Amino acid sequence: MRRVAIAAAATSKFTKSSDRPIFELACEPCIEILRETEKKGERKKDIDAVLLSTCSQEQYSSAIVSEMLGLQPKVSQRIDNLCNSGTNAIASAYSMIAAGLADSALIVGAEKADSSGNRLTWDVTRGEFNFPVHWAAMFARAHMRRYGTTEEQMAQVSVNNHEKAAENPDALFYGKRVSLQQVMSSKKIAEPVKLLDCSAPCDGASAVLLVSEQRAKKLENPVWIKGIGQQTSGASFASTPDLTELGTARRAAKEAYEMAGIKKPAQEIDVAELHDAFTILEIMAYEDLGFAARGKGGNFVSENDSIAINTRGGILGCGHPVGATGVSQVAEVALQLAGRKAGNRQVKNCKTGLVHNLAAAGSSATVIVLGV
Amino acid sequence: MRRVAIAAAATSKFTKSSDRPIFELACEPCIEILRETEKKGERKKDIDAVLLSTCSQEQYSSAIVSEMLGLQPKVSQRIDNLCNSGTNAIASAYSMIAAGLADSALIVGAEKADSSGNRLTWDVTRGEFNFPVHWAAMFARAHMRRYGTTEEQMAQVSVNNHEKAAENPDALFYGKRVSLQQVMSSKKIAEPVKLLDCSAPCDGASAVLLVSEQRAKKLENPVWIKGIGQQTSGASFASTPDLTELGTARRAAKEAYEMAGIKKPAQEIDVAELHDAFTILEIMAYEDLGFAARGKGGNFVSENDSIAINTRGGILGCGHPVGATGVSQVAEVALQLAGRKAGNRQVKNCKTGLVHNLAAAGSSATVIVLGV
Repeated sequence: MRRVAIAAAATSKFTKSSDRPIFELACEPCIEILRETEKKGERKKDIDAVLLSTCSQEQYSSAIVSEMLGLQPKVSQRIDNLCNSGTNAIASAYSMIAAGLADSALIVGAEKADSSGNRLTWDVTRGEFNFPVHWAAMFARAHMRRYGTTEEQMAQVSVNNHEKAAENPDALFYGKRVSLQQVMSSKKIAEPVKLLDCSAPCDGASAVLLVSEQRAKKLENPVWIKGIGQQTSGASFASTPDLTELGTARRAAKEAYEMAGIKKPAQEIDVAELHDAFTILEIMAYEDLGFAARGKGGNFVSENDSIAINTRGGILGCGHPVGATGVSQVAEVALQLAGRKAGNRQVKNCKTGLVHNLAAAGSSATVIVLGV
Repeated sequence: MRRVAIAAAATSKFTKSSDRPIFELACEPCIEILRETEKKGERKKDIDAVLLSTCSQEQYSSAIVSEMLGLQPKVSQRIDNLCNSGTNAIASAYSMIAAGLADSALIVGAEKADSSGNRLTWDVTRGEFNFPVHWAAMFARAHMRRYGTTEEQMAQVSVNNHEKAAENPDALFYGKRVSLQQVMSSKKIAEPVKLLDCSAPCDGASAVLLVSEQRAKKLENPVWIKGIGQQTSGASFASTPDLTELGTARRAAKEAYEMAGIKKPAQEIDVAELHDAFTILEIMAYEDLGFAARGKGGNFVSENDSIAINTRGGILGCGHPVGATGVSQVAEVALQLAGRKAGNRQVKNCKTGLVHNLAAAGSSATVIVLGV
């Protein structure tokens, strides 16, 4: 099987909303990548696939973005699976390259703040609760009840991720630190979930260029895709039988670890992007990914000192442009592992990274392991 | 590289329109496949991917279809690229299996007659002409001018495909033969294109189950995916510089033939599904695929006696449910090659088949070669 490397990655500044059309948003990080890789001798005509990840309802949008970028790829398609769209697109591009149908693929995620991907309107098991915050509240209550997880521990996740976003000029909440007290006293949205436990929809785009092993030879710091695990339980909240864990994420992690040869994730993973659309999800991710023992996720928030988590500020700090999120997670870990590229938030000596992404109450999960 | 086989295929009856939601349409051919493969020992839990091809604007639709079918696949995503969506999804599924991320994949294409995929609203190079018939008229005029192709030759394509659809109970125009005179005197839509030169939007769904080489061992008549070629020129009509040929289709064919080891397509291909959304497109396809010499496509309509073309009735006879079309083309060729499965339209002794699919004035093309 041909190995697949990440040759370049770029994320635009996420903004609350803008009057820029989705296509313009999508092009921005791609142009940055095309300029960067042109210097290394990559030509536009060598890009074999353009995969657009978005919940936007525009038709033939991947072909439009290809044309706006001056690309004539073999493959051009849009992929959507709500918040998990971006990581789905990365896995598809990986497959096309590994299978030999493409030697390179540009994956771009883009979303507008008012995306119809922000609601879950089909699932009647959610009743009238078609905003995701309602199921986050149920996860939080269940975890508190069974394991004694506290509202303060959840609040601390928000403090941590806003702290990192404060240093990231591309984050929606750049420069906006929040204190534990501020999170705890922020408006209750669906108890025990408060406003600052929630991420915010926003405008944003991110792109990643994948290349084949052969094409990676001219790269200075290739970052390899070492493992991919994916799992779907359905589309309903009812398909998540235990509200204290996400079976989808557990199975996806197991599969990705096996493929990447990871035996002890807590020791082997240096840097990780976890899906923290709500604070409770990051705590559950610690457990589902094997970073912390079951029920110990709440303590791990403060105890963790070995894994650099959500270094860009996570979804809580960066904002959540649905189709762009998964791509921006992979972009961040790739930049960290490539070294010297993540600016003032560069983690030293990181060799192995992980991306954990979810959609629709965890009814879909992707875990990707990257390494140098 | 792992080889990939088609294990089963099914297409529902295409209808002018119905009050059935897109999800119900999508499930119908899948249920037929699941019932058929269950008898051979395939279990629902062994389906690793569900890829939904549609231009419908429903969110997380692949996860919804997965849940309605009782499937919990690893991968669940929607893929869209207008009329080329279905063949894009087949190529993605092929990649996932060949790359080892999945051992089986269910690809389902589904569309409602009123799909927003029936219009091309972005491309300003088309002016006000955002219905595809306008560019079909330009192709037809150009081909007539340069090569002397006649309106009667185009009309004959419609006669031929309606003839075959008349025998296909699942076709929109089942039982509805048309004479050359009827086509020629049908309403002029955009000269020289007449009503019966055009396909009709409709409700429809089709599904195909792909499996890995290992999993194919229990199949009686595996049909193999031997070659895939794809090409995108952009999203604009302006990206098609020569109106008498489609460069996208030519390059896609070249790539697919190389991968499949096809040297003389006109001699080696036994059965083919060609994209005949308008009659002129089938004539151009003969030339772009190397079945006929350049400019000889018009004559090939009546002269061809070696390749069984559009045996189900093509898009002209079956109807054009945009996201379902590419899947139903692959399904038809797979059923023909598997032998004894295409009912009263079974082509005898066919060993090599081809699918040719297009989107948006040929700005995107896919060619797939299948074989036994």
